[in-house]
Amino acid sequence: MTTTFQPPCRLLMGPGPINADPRVSRAMSAALVGQYDPAMTGYMNETQQLYRQVFRTHNEATLLVDGTSRAGIEAALVSLVAPGERVLVPMFGRFGLLLKEIAERCGAEVHTIEAPWGEVFTPEQIEQALARVKPHVLALVQGDTSTTMCQPLEGIGALCRRHGALFYTDVTASLAGNELRVDDWQIDAATAGLQKCLAGPSGSSPITLSARAVDKIMQRAHIEAGLRQSSDEAGHAQPIRSNYLDLSQILKYWGPERLNHHTEATAMLYGARMCAALLVEEGMDQAIARHQLHGQAMAAGLTAMGLELFGDQQHRMHNVVGVYIPEGLDGEAVRRCLLEDFAIEIGTSFGPLHGRIWRIGTMGYNARRDCVFTTLAALEQVLGLFDVTVPAGEAVRAAHRIYSTSTLQDTPHA
Amino acid sequence: MTTTFQPPCRLLMGPGPINADPRVSRAMSAALVGQYDPAMTGYMNETQQLYRQVFRTHNEATLLVDGTSRAGIEAALVSLVAPGERVLVPMFGRFGLLLKEIAERCGAEVHTIEAPWGEVFTPEQIEQALARVKPHVLALVQGDTSTTMCQPLEGIGALCRRHGALFYTDVTASLAGNELRVDDWQIDAATAGLQKCLAGPSGSSPITLSARAVDKIMQRAHIEAGLRQSSDEAGHAQPIRSNYLDLSQILKYWGPERLNHHTEATAMLYGARMCAALLVEEGMDQAIARHQLHGQAMAAGLTAMGLELFGDQQHRMHNVVGVYIPEGLDGEAVRRCLLEDFAIEIGTSFGPLHGRIWRIGTMGYNARRDCVFTTLAALEQVLGLFDVTVPAGEAVRAAHRIYSTSTLQDTPHA
Repeated sequence: MTTTFQPPCRLLMGPGPINADPRVSRAMSAALVGQYDPAMTGYMNETQQLYRQVFRTHNEATLLVDGTSRAGIEAALVSLVAPGERVLVPMFGRFGLLLKEIAERCGAEVHTIEAPWGEVFTPEQIEQALARVKPHVLALVQGDTSTTMCQPLEGIGALCRRHGALFYTDVTASLAGNELRVDDWQIDAATAGLQKCLAGPSGSSPITLSARAVDKIMQRAHIEAGLRQSSDEAGHAQPIRSNYLDLSQILKYWGPERLNHHTEATAMLYGARMCAALLVEEGMDQAIARHQLHGQAMAAGLTAMGLELFGDQQHRMHNVVGVYIPEGLDGEAVRRCLLEDFAIEIGTSFGPLHGRIWRIGTMGYNARRDCVFTTLAALEQVLGLFDVTVPAGEAVRAAHRIYSTSTLQDTPHA
Repeated sequence: MTTTFQPPCRLLMGPGPINADPRVSRAMSAALVGQYDPAMTGYMNETQQLYRQVFRTHNEATLLVDGTSRAGIEAALVSLVAPGERVLVPMFGRFGLLLKEIAERCGAEVHTIEAPWGEVFTPEQIEQALARVKPHVLALVQGDTSTTMCQPLEGIGALCRRHGALFYTDVTASLAGNELRVDDWQIDAATAGLQKCLAGPSGSSPITLSARAVDKIMQRAHIEAGLRQSSDEAGHAQPIRSNYLDLSQILKYWGPERLNHHTEATAMLYGARMCAALLVEEGMDQAIARHQLHGQAMAAGLTAMGLELFGDQQHRMHNVVGVYIPEGLDGEAVRRCLLEDFAIEIGTSFGPLHGRIWRIGTMGYNARRDCVFTTLAALEQVLGLFDVTVPAGEAVRAAHRIYSTSTLQDTPHA
């Protein structure tokens, strides 16, 4: 019957979404309060304070966009980029392509540079493009799960200031699993999601904006009253094209004015708040080290199984590893067997990597020793069923060696 | 400590959001599954089938937009309305103003007609405006909580076809509490939210689109590949300005192609699915009759207390009633006292009604006999504390009389 509801129990070891921390799920089912209830205002303020610690920033403008991580990306770009402005998008995977696509929809003149899938950009490559394009905004993914690569961001903010650009970064897949220092790295806007290292469900997008970014957004909002529909020729004087994702309005809803915008997605806010509270309790350095440790253990286990890892391992995200599908093997059949027999999901891939690699995540609530061992053991068995020769027990032993050298208390959830 | 989380228990009797049905909250905390898990695909299909029944439609294109009800509104308008096209918005409250504002952001040429707050439009008024403006799209709110009015929609669809317009309606506040027949009434697009009569939390927007609406959206999407950024002068040839809210892409994600768009907000989908499942189990006619009954009981109780109701009672939404604040009384002080001493929230109001009326809702999980009696009893006591003379016990007796004449099984949740 439709009102009884019991989803199957899966271990989600793909590139996200992953299993939510049970404390996040419980928070989401807590009693709802009204939109202007003093308790609600308190939760909104706490959420802002918690995400400042997650993003490592003092930005007053740190809040949630009500939608998935993609809503946060579009909110940042539609609010920051006026039609006709230049945006530079260095693309090293599928999510760079998404930034390009969204910036085009915002009416921007988009310029791109490309790195081969499995590599990242050098600062010199980015600086050359900044000097050539002179963009109003640089839009750069930090961790692109399509390739598992993590673009180094330190120093890019300084380059952007030198070349007069605002620096936006999409940290959906990387935040809390890889280092990010919004203030130290002079990042003007960063957006995330809950469904990766934050251990929550998709549906809320934490975002932080520097004072420079807020200034530009508020100037655009200011233009609106006077110039709406009368300035299509002058690119800079066009109002923000979205209402729902207009950060100037959302900022006034979260700020001291508390101006009504949409009805806050209360249950998602409860969940997003808990995601950050758990990270802050654990400590951001510890959370990142935990993701690094379990990612290393997974990679070592896969290698010991005789599989080859994909891409530049020096620049791999901590929380997801790409691994080549053995020659001649039907990767989707293996994934189906893992799901049906072991209830474990690992990721497929798309674009140029489709059919060539699997992507295996160790993130959020599933960045745990037992998840790594269980996944390696299951994959070894399933490869055996498919007549792939795998050295018995080597994967788990290799992961064990990684853990034995670590002093990290690696499963804080246990 | 921030990781312990215990929101206060409130009875939310304002114009929404309201308390979620516990079965919806429980569904939202169920185990997450992957985005392309066969179970997830099944839940998406079930959700579509359930919302067809809620909307009373056979529209294949019936699905969820991942965001609050406002995201659904903007998805409909940004996808349906090309820049430069004419949109007619008959406004009879705050949410008509919102439709106007969003349509303007979409680049539309917006024409409005206005009804005084507390009234609705006659079909003749709407037809005259249709004939004069010749809009591409008529955008009309069904239930506007700012005024508590419910615009009759029957017959408007036929007028729109006669005048060559698509008919979009925002049913966020009215769906499942007031009659809506999408197919019979020839509605081309309708969008809703969970936080009113659907008994869920804000954060997901059910939407349905007629074949005519889908055709137009798909034509616009088709244009994109060839003409992007090259056709700003020809209004009709401009691509959809949003990626996140582009219904052509979202339709392909929900349809048989299952093309990847954003990562579905899984927990919100679980909740939205359960909202519809509970309504379908109850029966739509029964759900609407339940809202009507409890709204009548609340209105009768308030009247018996000596308070005056706001607006045209023949066209009041079943699920919310506006009531004048007695002369000289500080309405906000009364609301604070109700919240602090009785943990009951009733609604303030805005615009021309600010400080003049309270808005009291009986909707979703709170369209229940005990909620009505408790609210009336508490309000009677609080008015007494504020030295307003109220006939003792008359409100509850009047509500009792309403219930005694009804054969409805009025509290299906109990």
